[in-house]
Amino acid sequence: MEKQTEISQLGEFGLIDRITSGLENKNKSTVRGVGDDCAVLDYPDTEVLVSTDLLVEGIHFDLTYVPLKHLGYKAAVVNFSDIYAMNGTPRQITVALAISSRFTVEHIEELYAGIRLACEIYGVDLVGGDTTASRSGLVISVTCVGDAPKESVVYRSGAKDTDLICVSGDLGSAYMGLQLLEREKRVSNGDKDFIPKFEGKEYLIERQLKPEARKDIVRELGEKGIVPTSMMDISDGLSSELLHLCRASDTGCRVYEDRLPIDYQTAVMAEELNMNVATAALNGGEDYELVFTVPLHFHDDISKMRGIKVIGHMTKPELGCALITRDGVEMTLKAQGFNHMAD
Amino acid sequence: MEKQTEISQLGEFGLIDRITSGLENKNKSTVRGVGDDCAVLDYPDTEVLVSTDLLVEGIHFDLTYVPLKHLGYKAAVVNFSDIYAMNGTPRQITVALAISSRFTVEHIEELYAGIRLACEIYGVDLVGGDTTASRSGLVISVTCVGDAPKESVVYRSGAKDTDLICVSGDLGSAYMGLQLLEREKRVSNGDKDFIPKFEGKEYLIERQLKPEARKDIVRELGEKGIVPTSMMDISDGLSSELLHLCRASDTGCRVYEDRLPIDYQTAVMAEELNMNVATAALNGGEDYELVFTVPLHFHDDISKMRGIKVIGHMTKPELGCALITRDGVEMTLKAQGFNHMAD
Repeated sequence: MEKQTEISQLGEFGLIDRITSGLENKNKSTVRGVGDDCAVLDYPDTEVLVSTDLLVEGIHFDLTYVPLKHLGYKAAVVNFSDIYAMNGTPRQITVALAISSRFTVEHIEELYAGIRLACEIYGVDLVGGDTTASRSGLVISVTCVGDAPKESVVYRSGAKDTDLICVSGDLGSAYMGLQLLEREKRVSNGDKDFIPKFEGKEYLIERQLKPEARKDIVRELGEKGIVPTSMMDISDGLSSELLHLCRASDTGCRVYEDRLPIDYQTAVMAEELNMNVATAALNGGEDYELVFTVPLHFHDDISKMRGIKVIGHMTKPELGCALITRDGVEMTLKAQGFNHMAD
Repeated sequence: MEKQTEISQLGEFGLIDRITSGLENKNKSTVRGVGDDCAVLDYPDTEVLVSTDLLVEGIHFDLTYVPLKHLGYKAAVVNFSDIYAMNGTPRQITVALAISSRFTVEHIEELYAGIRLACEIYGVDLVGGDTTASRSGLVISVTCVGDAPKESVVYRSGAKDTDLICVSGDLGSAYMGLQLLEREKRVSNGDKDFIPKFEGKEYLIERQLKPEARKDIVRELGEKGIVPTSMMDISDGLSSELLHLCRASDTGCRVYEDRLPIDYQTAVMAEELNMNVATAALNGGEDYELVFTVPLHFHDDISKMRGIKVIGHMTKPELGCALITRDGVEMTLKAQGFNHMAD
């Protein structure tokens, strides 16, 4: 094992110096990053978007199978995803950590390596944060600041009757990755030399451990001049997000089971677990894909976009939110997704 | 006891609806508050200031003697303080909570009552957040966004040799309040009917449990046309903050023990505890007063400001950071302040 340094040897300020050394800001909106009471930003021409997430050990992640670098990467990316969900561009993040005594300086450096890699890839500046002790486990709070021209900010509330409902990528794979990791953890029974069986299912693992935010989709929509009428990222499951869009926009919706984008590995894994794959696609969380609506006349443009699938359309609110199954049965759409507070 | 509702009865979204009901935005920079993937803000003419803090149960607060409403108030105010420390005005906050199962809906409402009261008093909008479960205890992460005209942002790094060092209010009282609360907690020995002895020391308790941020000082400096050359808020202790200012500004400093502003109750409590009151004033944390520097020619203006005391001056860096004691001895200033990560 590599050398491990107790955090108390460095103290809070020493640790902060270590994890922020060599940071360089890439965005012109970043006037001042780490090192003062506040970060200082400059957004004269665009709207400022702000989003916050809290990740708690034992609730959102399990360090028996999540490498710290992946965790850092994911913590950053899921916040970028919220900015893309408003049709914006993430520019800055702050990271607040609560760390229990079992973590060393090297552990925190690993975590930050992941955060900094995500920032590098997505062009985001790490501009501040807070570092403190914790009685038990690791807590990560990330706040992301981004921007968008005023006329292109997309809310949840702009969808209209007959708008097409579109989804990027595929659904349910991150959830299946989690099932797979949990299964192998049970099988391993705490044996450190255990080699988990992931062959042929690498995609599911990657979707769970190292999700990406759909920067590419937002860019492509922009290039085609398409501003969605409403949009969200899919963190709690498609059903849950669709119900949010319908509630905010005062619409109903009809989505078609046979239109749900599902990867081959997701389908195989569902089969193995004897689960309904559509349930996983509708309710599995953490895919960080985008669900959005566009007016009907964009049908041809949208259909030509790779990695976008039209899964249904908005309706008048009195028609409710419905899923049309493969055999043509209409069912009420319910959110059974990720909800850490229920049960 | 009043009716208590399990959080699982409402679920995450139900709880969010409850705690955000009736929110009204007061700032014109708030375009959209809670209810979407991001808050949307608009800052065409000013710099945007962003600060983040994380408060962890058992590290930063002890719910045996901290009422939840006070905790919420303090969590918000300490973040406002960071914005004032840049000579700015706090405008928006986001609040992320991790909540263990021992907390009820009513508990969280109490906490939010404090947050909302602070927002009301300081004119800040609550624009977003995240709510999740926790395995143990309560974690509160607050991010504050504020603004300041570009030419009035005050960094840590602008102090010059001979600048006067000024401090608002008094120091060490919040620390003494903590000592008092901890003492009474020990004496109570877990007895719920125990009545703690706070007579004559109410100010110390208030400073610890319900600190205020120095909005008034920032406003008054603005009215007098004084832009400090450097500034910080005193959260970790005066010594620690002075060393930060000197390091960032490349200066030394000389501060005078007999100039340290100390309240009568702080002095009495120090006597009772057989502590050096100057040590408490220099190293006690959480006063949330402002320490700032101004050019010498502001001496008369500053001296006329109520609640501001000149405690020394900046020097050339090679002279180091020194405390001149009451009997004229020069000692090296050391940060022995609040450091949750050390020891």
